Amino acid sequence: MKRLNFDVDVIESEWGEGVNLDILLQKLQADRSHAVKAVCVVHNETSTGVTNDLGLVRKSLDEAGHPALLLVDGVSSVGAIDFRMDEWRVDVALTGSQKALSLPTGLGIVCASPKALEACKHVKSTRGYFDWREYLECYKAGTYWPYTPSVQMLYGLRASLDLILKVEGLENIIARHLRLAEATREAVKAWGLTVSAKKPEWDSAVVTGVVVPPWLDSNDVIKIAWKKYNLSLGVGLGKVAGKLFRIGHLGYMNELQLLGALAGVELSLKDVGYPVVLGSGVAAAQGCLSKQTPLIASRL
Amino acid sequence: MKRLNFDVDVIESEWGEGVNLDILLQKLQADRSHAVKAVCVVHNETSTGVTNDLGLVRKSLDEAGHPALLLVDGVSSVGAIDFRMDEWRVDVALTGSQKALSLPTGLGIVCASPKALEACKHVKSTRGYFDWREYLECYKAGTYWPYTPSVQMLYGLRASLDLILKVEGLENIIARHLRLAEATREAVKAWGLTVSAKKPEWDSAVVTGVVVPPWLDSNDVIKIAWKKYNLSLGVGLGKVAGKLFRIGHLGYMNELQLLGALAGVELSLKDVGYPVVLGSGVAAAQGCLSKQTPLIASRL
Amino acid sequence: MKRLNFDVDVIESEWGEGVNLDILLQKLQADRSHAVKAVCVVHNETSTGVTNDLGLVRKSLDEAGHPALLLVDGVSSVGAIDFRMDEWRVDVALTGSQKALSLPTGLGIVCASPKALEACKHVKSTRGYFDWREYLECYKAGTYWPYTPSVQMLYGLRASLDLILKVEGLENIIARHLRLAEATREAVKAWGLTVSAKKPEWDSAVVTGVVVPPWLDSNDVIKIAWKKYNLSLGVGLGKVAGKLFRIGHLGYMNELQLLGALAGVELSLKDVGYPVVLGSGVAAAQGCLSKQTPLIASRL
Amino acid sequence: MKRLNFDVDVIESEWGEGVNLDILLQKLQADRSHAVKAVCVVHNETSTGVTNDLGLVRKSLDEAGHPALLLVDGVSSVGAIDFRMDEWRVDVALTGSQKALSLPTGLGIVCASPKALEACKHVKSTRGYFDWREYLECYKAGTYWPYTPSVQMLYGLRASLDLILKVEGLENIIARHLRLAEATREAVKAWGLTVSAKKPEWDSAVVTGVVVPPWLDSNDVIKIAWKKYNLSLGVGLGKVAGKLFRIGHLGYMNELQLLGALAGVELSLKDVGYPVVLGSGVAAAQGCLSKQTPLIASRL
Repeated sequence: MKRLNFDVDVIESEWGEGVNLDILLQKLQADRSHAVKAVCVVHNETSTGVTNDLGLVRKSLDEAGHPALLLVDGVSSVGAIDFRMDEWRVDVALTGSQKALSLPTGLGIVCASPKALEACKHVKSTRGYFDWREYLECYKAGTYWPYTPSVQMLYGLRASLDLILKVEGLENIIARHLRLAEATREAVKAWGLTVSAKKPEWDSAVVTGVVVPPWLDSNDVIKIAWKKYNLSLGVGLGKVAGKLFRIGHLGYMNELQLLGALAGVELSLKDVGYPVVLGSGVAAAQGCLSKQTPLIASRL
Repeated sequence: MKRLNFDVDVIESEWGEGVNLDILLQKLQADRSHAVKAVCVVHNETSTGVTNDLGLVRKSLDEAGHPALLLVDGVSSVGAIDFRMDEWRVDVALTGSQKALSLPTGLGIVCASPKALEACKHVKSTRGYFDWREYLECYKAGTYWPYTPSVQMLYGLRASLDLILKVEGLENIIARHLRLAEATREAVKAWGLTVSAKKPEWDSAVVTGVVVPPWLDSNDVIKIAWKKYNLSLGVGLGKVAGKLFRIGHLGYMNELQLLGALAGVELSLKDVGYPVVLGSGVAAAQGCLSKQTPLIASRL
Repeated sequence: MKRLNFDVDVIESEWGEGVNLDILLQKLQADRSHAVKAVCVVHNETSTGVTNDLGLVRKSLDEAGHPALLLVDGVSSVGAIDFRMDEWRVDVALTGSQKALSLPTGLGIVCASPKALEACKHVKSTRGYFDWREYLECYKAGTYWPYTPSVQMLYGLRASLDLILKVEGLENIIARHLRLAEATREAVKAWGLTVSAKKPEWDSAVVTGVVVPPWLDSNDVIKIAWKKYNLSLGVGLGKVAGKLFRIGHLGYMNELQLLGALAGVELSLKDVGYPVVLGSGVAAAQGCLSKQTPLIASRL
Repeated sequence: MKRLNFDVDVIESEWGEGVNLDILLQKLQADRSHAVKAVCVVHNETSTGVTNDLGLVRKSLDEAGHPALLLVDGVSSVGAIDFRMDEWRVDVALTGSQKALSLPTGLGIVCASPKALEACKHVKSTRGYFDWREYLECYKAGTYWPYTPSVQMLYGLRASLDLILKVEGLENIIARHLRLAEATREAVKAWGLTVSAKKPEWDSAVVTGVVVPPWLDSNDVIKIAWKKYNLSLGVGLGKVAGKLFRIGHLGYMNELQLLGALAGVELSLKDVGYPVVLGSGVAAAQGCLSKQTPLIASRL
C-alpha cells in the first residue's frame, strides 16, 4: 500500500551499519537542480541498535552546499543521546513520549526550525493529523489546540521535563546512558557474543543488539526471558529475525536495574543451551560501572 | 491547505439543522454510475447540538438503491445515543475515548463492516496513521499492534466498558442521557431562551446549544461561568460565535451534577445582565427529572 | 468498656448547643487545687453542625486564672474554620487528613504547644500509638519516624497544603466555607425547615444539620438521596437519629457542587412527601451566593 | 515511658536466635495457676532476619497443657511465609499492609479466634484505637466501621488479595520467597560473609541479615548503596548497629530484582574496601535460581 504522496530516494544500509555518508554526499552533489527537498535520517535506529552521527550528516549537506531540509527521527534518541538542534541546524526533529521521556505512549513531539516553517507554507502534499500550521494558528488565537489535547500526557510531560532538567540534569542523563551502554557491551563480550552495530562509531547508547550463534534462535532466548524471568527483550526484525535480540537501556533506568536484566539474559542463555558462565557478564558490567558511577547528586 | 486526496461533495446545512435528507436522496438517485463511494455523516454534531437520524440516512441509501458505504462520525454519540451498527448497516463508525466512554483523550476507535474491509483492499488514496489493514495483519501474526500502543488507555477502555456494560448498562445510559437532555431543554425554556436545534427531531441527547438574545454576547456568559463559577461551557463556533453557548451533558454525569451546572448558568446569565429568575431553570429541570429518575440499580 | 485511664468530667450540652461557658467558668473557678489538668473542647461538632467559639473558651480559662491545658479537637475545623493556635493559646490541636485537607483518610495530625510538650514529660497515663515523644526523639536522631510512615499520605499532604496556602489561600478558603454555609442555611429556611444549631453563634461553616418535621423520618430522606440521586447526606446520631440529616460543605467544594447537592435534597424531600417547592432552596442559596462569589483568583 | 497497663514477662533471646523453646516450656509448666494469659511471639523478626517455628511454640503450649492465648506478630510473615492460623490454633494474628501484601503503609489487619473474642469480653486493660469489639458491633448494625475507614487502602487490599489468591497463588508466593532467600544466602556465602540467623532453622524467607567483618562499619555499606546505587538496605539496630546490614526480599519482587540488588551489594562492598569478587554472589545466586525458577504460570 502506498503511504506517501511524494517521491522518496532511500539510501539502503546493511543491518548493523549507519548512514553511508559517501553515498549521501555523492547524491547531494549530483543534485544540481536541488530537486531533493529534505534529507531524512534516523538518529538512533531502535530495531538494530545503531546510532548515526548527525554532525557528519550536517557536514555532508554543507560540503555539497545543498539547501535541503534536515529532518531527524529522534524517537529513541532525544533526551538520552546528545542531540544538537541548533548546532547541527536540524530543521525538523520529532520524538515520542514513551522513550527517553519515560512517559506512557501518547504524545508525538515535533520541533521545527524557521526554515522548516517557511518551507511548509508552500507544500502541496496531503497532510494527516499533525499539521503544525493549525497548531500555530491556534496558539496565535489563544485557543491553543485545534483538537482535544491529551491533557494528562501534558501534565506528565511537565513532570518528566522537571525530572530531566531540574532533578537529574540532561548532561547526567546522557552520561548515564553512555555508561549503561558500555557496561552492556562489556557483558556481551564476556558472554562471547557480539553486538549488532558493526563499528563502535555506530554503537547505540540506548539499545544494544546481541547477535547469537547460527545454531541458536534468538527468539528462544526472548521467549524464556519473558516466560521464566519476566524480562522483556526486543526481537530482531526483518532480515535479522531469529539472529539477534535487543537489550534496551533507555529512559528512567539505573545501574542495578541493568545488572538485574543482564543477570536475566545470562540465565536465559543458559536455559536455551548456550554455554554461558553465570555471573560473567554481570561481573564485566560491574567492573565497568564500578569505576564510573557517580554519587546521586540529589541524595548528597 | 488541502487535507484530502479525493473529491468530496458536501451537502451544506444551516447551523441548527441536521442532514437535508431530500437533497441526499436526490443526489444518490442522480448518481447512476455510482461514482459516490461513501456517504459520510456526523451522528451528533458536537458544536451545535444537532443529532441526525441515521436510520433515515440508511433509508435514503436503500431507497436510491445506492451501494455507497455508510461512514459515521460517532465521536460524541457512540455509547450515549442509540446507535445500531448492524440494523442501519453502518460500514465504518468511529469514536474517541474522551466522550461517552468518559476516558481521557488518547484513543480513536474505529469499527468497520466486512463491506468496508473489502472496499479497502482496492483503495488508491494515501493513508495516514490509522490504516486498519496493518492492524489486521498484526492481529493475524499475533503481534497485535503495528505501532507502540497506549497501554494505559487500553486498560482504561476495559474499565470503561465494564462500567457501561456490567455496572450501569447501555440501555440505562442511553435513557439517562435522554433524561438529562430533556431536563436541560426545560431549563432553557424556563429562562426564556431557545435551543439551537431548529426542530425537536434534531435535539441532541449529549449537548444543548443555547441561543442568547442579540444584545448579549454568549462569550461573556461563558467567561463569567468559567472565572466565577468554575463551570466550563462550550463556545459557539464559526457563524454562531457569540450567539450561542453549549451545555454538555455527556458521559459519566448524573442528575445533580447537571442541576449544579444549570444553577451556574443561571448565576452567569444574571451576572451578565440577562433578566433570569434564579432557580427557574433548575426548578423546571427538577420537575422533569423528579418524575423520571429511577433508583440506581447498583445501590438497591 | 473503659477507654481512658484517667478521670473525665464532662460538661453535657443539649444537641444543637455549644459549650456552656457559664458552667465551664464556674467549674474552673471552683477548682482551687488545679486538679483539672486540661480542658478539652471540640471546635466543630461534625455530628450536629455546631461550632464552639474557642476564643471564649480561652477567655473562661483566663478569667478563672486556671493553668489547665487547652486541648482542641479540630478534626472538622482546622483548615476550613478560623482557628488561632497562638492567639487562643491552644496547647494541643488535632485534625485528620480526610476533612478540610481534602485528602483520603489516613493521617492524624497533632500540634502541641511548648507547655503541652513540657506537661507530657511527667505523664503517668498509658499511651497508645501516637506518643509524640517518640517522634521528637526520632526527629533529633535524624531517623524521622519511629514507625513505618504512610509516605503516600505525606506526599498528599504536601500537595494539599500547596493548594491551601499557594493556590486558593487560607483566608479565601475560610471565606468560601462561610459563604457556602450561609447559602445552605438560606436554602433550609426556604424549605420551611430549621437548622440544628440552636443559635446563630453556633452555626457551623462546614456542616449544616437540618431538622425534619416530627411526622417525617430523616433516614428516609437520606436513603432516597443516596439511592436515587447518588447524594450522600449525613445521618442524625444518638438522640437525634431520624430527626435530622446533615449537609456537608467541607473541603474541596465549590458553589455549584453545593447547589447541585441542594437540588438533590429538594428532590429527595419531595419524594418522601415533604411539601417542598422545587428550586426554592436553590434559588435562595443562589441569591446569597450571587452577591458574594468572587472571581477565582487563579483564573484571572 | 510505660506503654502497657499489664505485666509482661519477656523471654530474652540473643540477636540472631529465635525463641528459646526450653525456657518457654519451663515457664508454662511452672505457671500452675495460669496467671499467664497469653504467649506473644514474633513470627519473623524483621530487624534481624530470624523466623520462629510457630508449630513448635504451639507444641510447647500443648505439652504444658497451658490455656494461654497464642498471639502472633505476623507483620512481615503473613502472606510470604507459611502461616497456619487454624492448624497451630493461633488466637490472634496481625499484619500490616506494607509487607507481604505489597501495599502502601496504612492498614493494620488483625485476625482473632473465637477463643480470643471470648477472652476479650472480660478484659479490664485500657484499649486504644483498634478495639475489635466496636468493629464487630458495627458489622452487626450494618454500619461497618466505627471510624472513618481508609477506603483507598481497602480497594488496594482487594487488588492485592486478587494478585495473591487468583494470579500468582499463595503456594507459589511462599515458594518464591524461599527461593529468593536461599539464593541470597548463597550470595552471602560467596562473598565470604555470614548471615545473622545463627542456625538454618531460623533463616528468614523475607529478609537476610549480613554480618560484616569487625573492621568494617555496616552503615558505610548501607550509605554507599543508597547514595551511589539507589539501593535501600536495612540497618542493624540496637546491639548489632554497625555490625550487620539487611537485604529485604519480601513482597512483590522477582528473581532479577533480587539479582540486581545483590549486584549492588557487591559494588557497595567493593567501594568500602571489602575484598569482594564482583559477580561472585550474583553467580552463586543465579546457580541456585537457575535450577528452581518455574515458568510464570500467568504467562504460559
